[in-house]
Amino acid sequence: MPGNSVYRKHLFDIPEDVIYLDGNSLGPLPRDAAQRATEVIASEWGRELIKAWNTADWISLPKNVGDRIARLIGAPEGSVATGDTLSIKVYQALAAALKMRPDRRVILSDNGNFPTDLYMAEGLIDTIGKDYELRTPSPEDVADVITEEVAVVMLTEVDYRTGRKHDMADITRRAHAARAVMIWDLAHSAGAMPVDLAGCNAEFATGCTYKYLNGGPGAPAFIYVRPDIIEQIEPALAGWMGHAAPFAMELNYRPMMSTERMRVGTPPIIQLSVLQQALRIWDGVDLQDIRAASIALSERFISEVEARCPELKLASPRNADERGSQVSFAFENGYAAMQAFIDRGVIGDFRAPDIMRFGFTPLYLDEGDIVRGAEVIEDVLKNELWRDPKYLVKSRVT
Amino acid sequence: MPGNSVYRKHLFDIPEDVIYLDGNSLGPLPRDAAQRATEVIASEWGRELIKAWNTADWISLPKNVGDRIARLIGAPEGSVATGDTLSIKVYQALAAALKMRPDRRVILSDNGNFPTDLYMAEGLIDTIGKDYELRTPSPEDVADVITEEVAVVMLTEVDYRTGRKHDMADITRRAHAARAVMIWDLAHSAGAMPVDLAGCNAEFATGCTYKYLNGGPGAPAFIYVRPDIIEQIEPALAGWMGHAAPFAMELNYRPMMSTERMRVGTPPIIQLSVLQQALRIWDGVDLQDIRAASIALSERFISEVEARCPELKLASPRNADERGSQVSFAFENGYAAMQAFIDRGVIGDFRAPDIMRFGFTPLYLDEGDIVRGAEVIEDVLKNELWRDPKYLVKSRVT
Repeated sequence: MPGNSVYRKHLFDIPEDVIYLDGNSLGPLPRDAAQRATEVIASEWGRELIKAWNTADWISLPKNVGDRIARLIGAPEGSVATGDTLSIKVYQALAAALKMRPDRRVILSDNGNFPTDLYMAEGLIDTIGKDYELRTPSPEDVADVITEEVAVVMLTEVDYRTGRKHDMADITRRAHAARAVMIWDLAHSAGAMPVDLAGCNAEFATGCTYKYLNGGPGAPAFIYVRPDIIEQIEPALAGWMGHAAPFAMELNYRPMMSTERMRVGTPPIIQLSVLQQALRIWDGVDLQDIRAASIALSERFISEVEARCPELKLASPRNADERGSQVSFAFENGYAAMQAFIDRGVIGDFRAPDIMRFGFTPLYLDEGDIVRGAEVIEDVLKNELWRDPKYLVKSRVT
Repeated sequence: MPGNSVYRKHLFDIPEDVIYLDGNSLGPLPRDAAQRATEVIASEWGRELIKAWNTADWISLPKNVGDRIARLIGAPEGSVATGDTLSIKVYQALAAALKMRPDRRVILSDNGNFPTDLYMAEGLIDTIGKDYELRTPSPEDVADVITEEVAVVMLTEVDYRTGRKHDMADITRRAHAARAVMIWDLAHSAGAMPVDLAGCNAEFATGCTYKYLNGGPGAPAFIYVRPDIIEQIEPALAGWMGHAAPFAMELNYRPMMSTERMRVGTPPIIQLSVLQQALRIWDGVDLQDIRAASIALSERFISEVEARCPELKLASPRNADERGSQVSFAFENGYAAMQAFIDRGVIGDFRAPDIMRFGFTPLYLDEGDIVRGAEVIEDVLKNELWRDPKYLVKSRVT
């Protein structure tokens, strides 16, 4: 069975009564994470105090974590900087990309991109105050409208709603043919499947680490810059941690001669340490094996659910090659239904207006989980258990 | 003794052999912080998984922490947003402030401001691409050069090198008289002394929480926006967590009708939880008492050190009213001397080119610590112990 070689649920701490199909939103707890947090807090901060920047090498932590992420996304060592949130990293990449094409005024994304990427572009356009235009055609059309007006193509590889996957290599090639700069958001890719950043030749990539990389709630984000262009990037967010000599306290900004120039402020050492621990789980894991296992789980899930629940409509591509590591079903009463699943230990999530999402993470899921999950889904739908009024009350986060 | 009423060292976990005079750089470990981190990691993340956004109310955490900080800086409830780093918060404040004065092109700061504030201004100017000018006169001169050309006055209340303190009320009044917008960076003020933000009427303030607020390495920053102007602010960093309906996944940005519009991406829940725990230490603490105790400790330190070490030159204002909660001495061999102090348990820090800094934090320091610290400093200088070659090797972080 393809899932076997990567399955390592013993490295996680997941409640026994839970089938967790939401690792695409917040990965579960790596077993050693709490202990690592205790070490960094009680021993490093508590005992070493300010000295820990040197003695516990906090100062290198963002780079060390970046190098671990680089290996998972097909990027060379030293090309990934960590810190901040994904929104901030998108802003940095976009601001830098626009400067590379000063004669162009179109930012091309798609209407399936995660909203914050589009919002950050809006905020940047508004800050620059020039007549930039943000175009958001449908994901199906975007590859065909990369014209010579386009300064930057900014896309998320895997659609957060449907799991639909863009062809990174093909779109990047088209972007470059039109002399546009390419930015990939890997939020739903990093740790979910192989990514060949170096191979596709995109200038920038961004991503988050609290989904498939299991870094914990609000774990730091990352940004990749293609090594051959890093020295021409003038960071929009020119923080002291990206300065060539942060502790020289110079009055003027001089960027570091590496991707580290994309760092901004003081790094979140506790969250970075927990993330570093979470990334150790990937030692020896082949992303090709992850992908094969993910497809096996997803295919099994689709066939189980479709056989049991005719009222659900597959909202993801049927062809596994066109999907990321999630499967979505549309259902008019999806919000209530998802609450009912969760109440019965099958945790996915809901995205407005009617999408029920299920993520597949072979590190801690096997086919038995999939079948048991499908049984619960069938039970809730066949018996209309979602009609219970308690499932209709919307919580603040859905 | 004025220090007595606020002294609560039992709430911290500080090594016994250490006299910690660097709380102005990284506050020490609050006793309950590691336990709180374990709870949020093992129980909330581990047991509740994605549900914790609701069940553990993670979604309200940034606001709850902001309200705790507001009380310490003279700001009304709901006026302080938390998250990101101080550099990012400076960028947000400055971008918003410049938009309030579209007809002006001068940003006035001073050359004693912390470098990252100046760097972020440089990056913003470069991103906007207009002919803005960043002026950095000396701190002593800045109040007199607030002309009608100035769009924004952006200052740090307490100088990170010398501890020299600006008069917030006076400078804000002068800024407003020239119709300039005022931004205060409270990095060395919050938790160090009373701050009367509402009273001084500044439009914006920013600050960090890992110094006097003891939030831990890389703890999240904060931003204050004067309540009467929040609805006119169009955030430059328009992230989904500042959207009026983050989970509606709308394609266009619509800011929240509160200071929360200054939030950007997914908040760092683990660091915010540790910070929240650290802020509980302030329950019942009067900042006027902190200030009185801080002045008593600082005055004692100056008189002890000056009596014992004539080779040191006071680099801070002699008048306590003109200082923050730190005292700096200039010494040509300050780097090596500081390493020698640290080796003997007296922890301060060094800022290039020749400043030895000592912070005063009455929550966990008393006059006995000050005298013992001065004895160690005297021993190192009298016996030239700093000449040991091991103290001359510069570490990466100084």
